[in-house]
Amino acid sequence: MPAPTSLIRPLVRRLRPYVPGEQPKIRGLIKLNTNENPYPPSPKVLAAIRAAADERVRRYPNPTAGGLRGQLAKLHGCAPGQFIVGNGSDELLALATRAFVEPGRTVQFFTPSYSLYPVLADIHGARRNAVPLAADFSLPPVRELREHGAWDFRAALTFITTPNAPSGRGCGTGELKDLCRAQKGVVVLDEAYADFARENAFSLALEFPHVLVARTFSKAYSLCFLRVGYFAGHPGLIAAMQKIRDSYNVNGMGQAAAAAALGDLPYYRRNFKRIIATRERLSRELRTLGFVVPPSQTNFIFARPPGFSAREWLARWRENRVLVRWFDAPETRDFLRITIGTDAEADALLRAARKILSRRA
Amino acid sequence: MPAPTSLIRPLVRRLRPYVPGEQPKIRGLIKLNTNENPYPPSPKVLAAIRAAADERVRRYPNPTAGGLRGQLAKLHGCAPGQFIVGNGSDELLALATRAFVEPGRTVQFFTPSYSLYPVLADIHGARRNAVPLAADFSLPPVRELREHGAWDFRAALTFITTPNAPSGRGCGTGELKDLCRAQKGVVVLDEAYADFARENAFSLALEFPHVLVARTFSKAYSLCFLRVGYFAGHPGLIAAMQKIRDSYNVNGMGQAAAAAALGDLPYYRRNFKRIIATRERLSRELRTLGFVVPPSQTNFIFARPPGFSAREWLARWRENRVLVRWFDAPETRDFLRITIGTDAEADALLRAARKILSRRA
Repeated sequence: MPAPTSLIRPLVRRLRPYVPGEQPKIRGLIKLNTNENPYPPSPKVLAAIRAAADERVRRYPNPTAGGLRGQLAKLHGCAPGQFIVGNGSDELLALATRAFVEPGRTVQFFTPSYSLYPVLADIHGARRNAVPLAADFSLPPVRELREHGAWDFRAALTFITTPNAPSGRGCGTGELKDLCRAQKGVVVLDEAYADFARENAFSLALEFPHVLVARTFSKAYSLCFLRVGYFAGHPGLIAAMQKIRDSYNVNGMGQAAAAAALGDLPYYRRNFKRIIATRERLSRELRTLGFVVPPSQTNFIFARPPGFSAREWLARWRENRVLVRWFDAPETRDFLRITIGTDAEADALLRAARKILSRRA
Repeated sequence: MPAPTSLIRPLVRRLRPYVPGEQPKIRGLIKLNTNENPYPPSPKVLAAIRAAADERVRRYPNPTAGGLRGQLAKLHGCAPGQFIVGNGSDELLALATRAFVEPGRTVQFFTPSYSLYPVLADIHGARRNAVPLAADFSLPPVRELREHGAWDFRAALTFITTPNAPSGRGCGTGELKDLCRAQKGVVVLDEAYADFARENAFSLALEFPHVLVARTFSKAYSLCFLRVGYFAGHPGLIAAMQKIRDSYNVNGMGQAAAAAALGDLPYYRRNFKRIIATRERLSRELRTLGFVVPPSQTNFIFARPPGFSAREWLARWRENRVLVRWFDAPETRDFLRITIGTDAEADALLRAARKILSRRA
C-alpha cells in the first residue's frame, strides 16, 4: 500500500503555506488584525441575502456571475466581457498565476506586499522574484529598477498591491503607468484597498492589454464572509481566466449580496469617509504617543511603536484584548499593521497604548 | 505593447473548457438537466442562512470550516483532520489534481463519467487516460483491466464516479475495493450521488491511505447555490490539499447552511426516499413507452429513447418546456440524462413524451 507522503507532489511537500490572520472567537476582543470593515454591510445587502434564502438555494447559481458582471460593466463604463468574478480576489490571483505563468517562469512582486504572492508562485512551481520597495515603501521609479538589475521586465506575471499593504502607502497612477508600460508580461494591480485611497488605477486596465485590476467586496463592502472579488481587464486575458476556473466558482449568496452592495454605493461611501476620518485621527494620536505612522491610503495603518519591539507590542496589546497584526520578515518586523475600526475601537487601542507605555520600566 | 494572446499559456489557449449544464431563466420550464434536488433545503437551513445575515457578514468566515469538519467527523466516526471542505466538490477535484499529479503525469478515469475530469487534466498539463466502462456501464473487473492493457495501475490520480454519472449505475463496494487495492496512485471515489444509492464506499477512505471519498451538499442536500463539498481520507493527503487551497475557500453562508443541513438529516432522508420512489416509477413508465432505462442508483436516469435520436428528443422535449441533458460523445450520444424532479415534473415529462411519440411520422 503506498505511503501517503510519496503520493504528494514534492513541491507541495516542501511548501510553506500562506498563514491568514487569526480569526479568534474570543468575546470582547477588539479585532484589528485582518482589515475587516468595522461597519456592517448596507441593510439592503442583508435584506437581499435573507430574500435569497428560499427555494432557489437548491439550484446552481449563475455560472458566470452574469448579473453582477453587467452591473460592474455599467459602474466602470466598459463591457461585461472585461470582468471575471471570483470566490474572493484570492481565487483570481491564483487563477492568474495558472493562466499566465508557465511553471518555471517568473512571478514577480515587491516586498513588503501581500504575502500570498510568493506562496502562489511556490504552489505553481514558478520562480519568485521579490524586489524591495524603497525604504519609505514607495514604488522605485522604472529608471531605478532598470539600473538596480533585480527587477525582471519580462516576468510572466507581476503583482503590485496598490495602495500597498501592509504599509498603507498610496501609489500615483502616473508611476504605475510608467511601470506597466515597461513590463512585457501580465501586470495585476491588486487594488483591494483602493476605495480608501485618493486615487485608483482602474483606467490602466482599460488602457493596457496586459494589465488587470483586482478588486474585492471583502473589505470596503463589508462582505468578507461571502467571498466575492473581481478582475477587470482585456477580454482576451479575462477569457483565459474564465476557461480554467471552476464552473460555479461564485456562490449565489455572494452574487446576490455584491449586486445589492452595488445598488447602495452612497451607504458605503459614507463608511469610507468615516474610516478615513478615524484613520487620520488615530494616526495623529499614535504619533503624539511616539509611534512612527507613515501616511496611509487604506483602511489600516502600519505603525512603528516606541519603547518595546513591535512583537512585544503585539503581545501587550493582546493582553489588553486588542488584536493587531505583526509580520515576521526583515522589512516588516519593526511595524504593526493596525486595521481601522470604529472610533470607539480606536479609543480603546489608544487607552491600551497609554497603559502599556505608562508601565514601561 | 504585448498582444494578449502571447501572454496566455499555450495549454490554456488550446483548452476546451468544461461546459456546465444550461441554467436558463425561462419561466415555466421544467428543469431536469443539472441533477438539482427538486425539494427545497430543510426549513432549518433557510432559517440558519437568514440568521447569519447579520453583522458577522463583514468578518472572514472560519478559514478551515472547523465547525463543519467537526460535525462531519462525528457523522462519519473519524477525525476532523480527515476532512477538507471546498467551494463545491469541483474545487476539491481540481485541488487534488494540483496536489497529487506532477504535470506530464497521468489523470485517469472511466468513460463515460464526469466530463470535468479530462478538463482538469488539461488545465494542469497532465496526461489523460480515459478507459471505457463495460457496455452496461459497469466497472470492468481488475483482472480484465490488467489484460486489456489501457488501464494504468500507476496513474498519479484516478477519478471514479460512484454511482456512475451519467449512467446512474451503482458500483459494489467489493469491486471498488479490488480496484483501490490494485492502484498505486491516489484514487478519488467521487460519491456525489451516494445518498441515492443502496451502498456507498466511504469505508474505503478510512481503510486505504491512498483513497479519498468526495461528497457534496449540492444535490442530495439541495444546496447547489451555496457551493459546499468535502473530501475525506488519510490526514496526510488531506493536509496536502489544505496547504494549497485558498485561505478562505468556503463562504460563511455555505458553512452555516451545511452545518444546519447536518443537523436535520431526517428531513433529507425523507427526500431521498421520495426521489428514489419517483425514479423507480418514472423508469417503469418510460420503459412502457419504449425507452431503454438501465437501473439507476442516483437522482437521475440515463434513458435511450425510441423513435428519434436522443438529440432530437432533447429538442422536442425542450419545445414542450422540458429540459434534459444530452452529452455529445460516442458512448453517451444515444442517451438522455434526466434528473429526477417532483412527481408532477415526472408526469409532465411523460405527458410530453406521449405527445412526441404520437406525432411520429
